[in-house]
Amino acid sequence: MTDDAAIYRAQRFGQASGLGAAPALVIVDFVEGFTDPAHFGGGNIRDAIAATVPLLAFARTEGWPVVHTRVVYADDGSDAGVFTWKVPALKTLTEVSPLSQIVPELAPAPGEYVLRKKGASAFFGTDLAGWLAMRRVDTVAVAGCTTSGCIRATVVDSLQHNFRTICLTDCVGDRALGPHEANLFDIGQKYADLMTGAALRAAWAART
Amino acid sequence: MTDDAAIYRAQRFGQASGLGAAPALVIVDFVEGFTDPAHFGGGNIRDAIAATVPLLAFARTEGWPVVHTRVVYADDGSDAGVFTWKVPALKTLTEVSPLSQIVPELAPAPGEYVLRKKGASAFFGTDLAGWLAMRRVDTVAVAGCTTSGCIRATVVDSLQHNFRTICLTDCVGDRALGPHEANLFDIGQKYADLMTGAALRAAWAART
Amino acid sequence: MTDDAAIYRAQRFGQASGLGAAPALVIVDFVEGFTDPAHFGGGNIRDAIAATVPLLAFARTEGWPVVHTRVVYADDGSDAGVFTWKVPALKTLTEVSPLSQIVPELAPAPGEYVLRKKGASAFFGTDLAGWLAMRRVDTVAVAGCTTSGCIRATVVDSLQHNFRTICLTDCVGDRALGPHEANLFDIGQKYADLMTGAALRAAWAART
Amino acid sequence: MTDDAAIYRAQRFGQASGLGAAPALVIVDFVEGFTDPAHFGGGNIRDAIAATVPLLAFARTEGWPVVHTRVVYADDGSDAGVFTWKVPALKTLTEVSPLSQIVPELAPAPGEYVLRKKGASAFFGTDLAGWLAMRRVDTVAVAGCTTSGCIRATVVDSLQHNFRTICLTDCVGDRALGPHEANLFDIGQKYADLMTGAALRAAWAART
Repeated sequence: MTDDAAIYRAQRFGQASGLGAAPALVIVDFVEGFTDPAHFGGGNIRDAIAATVPLLAFARTEGWPVVHTRVVYADDGSDAGVFTWKVPALKTLTEVSPLSQIVPELAPAPGEYVLRKKGASAFFGTDLAGWLAMRRVDTVAVAGCTTSGCIRATVVDSLQHNFRTICLTDCVGDRALGPHEANLFDIGQKYADLMTGAALRAAWAART
Repeated sequence: MTDDAAIYRAQRFGQASGLGAAPALVIVDFVEGFTDPAHFGGGNIRDAIAATVPLLAFARTEGWPVVHTRVVYADDGSDAGVFTWKVPALKTLTEVSPLSQIVPELAPAPGEYVLRKKGASAFFGTDLAGWLAMRRVDTVAVAGCTTSGCIRATVVDSLQHNFRTICLTDCVGDRALGPHEANLFDIGQKYADLMTGAALRAAWAART
Repeated sequence: MTDDAAIYRAQRFGQASGLGAAPALVIVDFVEGFTDPAHFGGGNIRDAIAATVPLLAFARTEGWPVVHTRVVYADDGSDAGVFTWKVPALKTLTEVSPLSQIVPELAPAPGEYVLRKKGASAFFGTDLAGWLAMRRVDTVAVAGCTTSGCIRATVVDSLQHNFRTICLTDCVGDRALGPHEANLFDIGQKYADLMTGAALRAAWAART
Repeated sequence: MTDDAAIYRAQRFGQASGLGAAPALVIVDFVEGFTDPAHFGGGNIRDAIAATVPLLAFARTEGWPVVHTRVVYADDGSDAGVFTWKVPALKTLTEVSPLSQIVPELAPAPGEYVLRKKGASAFFGTDLAGWLAMRRVDTVAVAGCTTSGCIRATVVDSLQHNFRTICLTDCVGDRALGPHEANLFDIGQKYADLMTGAALRAAWAART
């Protein structure tokens, strides 16, 4: 994307929004169904889960608010929307389905917000923005999957809600690497700063 | 993206949501600043504007609700958000700036909704969803720019609001073709049906 | 409120928005905890439940989309907001609490949307607007409790989302009759048409 | 409302949410059309404007973020919603109408956010929540009119967005006093703390 990058640079896209004073960690859809290529998984998703483990531990040590999202549809399909017409397998993600359970290595701790959602964005049709505002969060660090799906949508909404947003490049994964890379490009140019989980930890440690 | 496409096919992504009974046309950010590579333009944006001209004429003939969006920030920057930290030039798009005026070949007609927005999505922080619901729209056809920016964000939100969504492949444009193509792939797999403007016109004509 | 009503009349408030072509019935928070004065109940709430029974039967016969809301907070209080500071007992309304179960005479049928909410409005932080838009609803009839709380908030949001809104005067109830009456006045002047459940059934029957 | 108040007290409504560390002042619809009983005015609205003057001066001295809202519809009525069916005169409030100009004694200063809205709530269909979150506001003090209309709706949404909310009893006004009082009762019980402008200034001064 050399030439593509040149025009973004010429137009002064891709400036940093930076790390603020009050971060939160939002982990999107790291549930069993996204670890298995027979369902929604594949690509580098398992690697991203592994990279998120030390980040979650760090967030807890630092007392950052932590959110875990799950996709959950009603058993009777009464709340299925047009998204399920495009991607019918979404309807298998019900409250008790094994596919919709958060992976054990990232199991939520008490007080962390387990947010049920039906859309791509963790903010859409939920009260996430207010949950973060109540905690006076100014920076949202995003991990999870998939980069080209719910991560992209969540990052765009996080920015639109006026949170400085950090997309953790090694803590987000996708079933296919082409879209993963393409979306990181868009995200970095327009919506969020790109950092590894380790870089975020180091930046925060250096600051405090 | 052959291999990438294979995993999406195996997981049954990319089904059609289809053309409903009541379409609207949403034209995103075809304003002067996006026609000029010295500002936000470049790539295939001018071609996309040209392709949208007959589509807009068709929508008017058929009586579809029509929306035109503009990015508009206050002169004093009082409403500038984090988006303007990532992309500082956005702040040049004020109410009276020549850069923020809709291109003359797509000038709004009376009764069409000229929607001011500050985010990427035409739905974010606006009353667009309710404007469409009031007209009992069930299908949103999206033209405009840029494919990797405000089109992508608008398409995702249109789906999340439960409108069948159609992304008009030749009526959307971007300053760079790599992101344009990559985003059309994502959009078609997950959020909207991909059609040319001519194909949409033909499908509608065949239906009625 | 004679004099009060006069100024509203002089300023031409209180016009009818009318009954459209596609109604839905939204039943707000008719759960056990609101039937008991020891928790959130009292006043005319039990009467309002009784009046809603034939309306729900009618809605089902006519095939109207039906929504039932429940207030549900997480067991660990992780999602409690400022509303629970003003009204601490809200936190008792958890997924399995007897207080948060829909009353048996209005038990949801399969396919009806059981919507969990934490705010006053059934639309806030939920996907209700899109659920209704997907069904091309143009009129929202509101039953439930309390008139001065979640009914008022839901009615205002229903109007803001551009649904014609009907507040069913005998199918909404409140723990105290002063606020019940005062809110019906405001609602009728600004946000919704006031009808009894029987009048709505008659109006619909006369129409079809 | 003695008996009414008793049941609210028994059910532990009406707790204080308190004054936080970072307030903002939101002044709702103090525009010319609401000062004139021939349009939307009457009652105690002029008194409320007068009481807001020293509060606005105080907010500026303290550096609080300040928002002024105006109701603004398009000249051609293209964006008129169902609200204008209930209250047709709303459509007279256009960008250049004298009725929609902020009263001179509360004229906005540079950097203060002049927010155009079409709904009752200042938050609905706008980016106000994100504007406040970006400034890490935790408390929203609300002045303006009318108590039974846009104040009530704004206060409810402010709470739902998880801002501690303060309704300034002498800085909010209504065309009719019955609804003014009735809404203050509801607001104090469920959504916001009730304080005079002077009491808020004193509480803030005592704190810092």
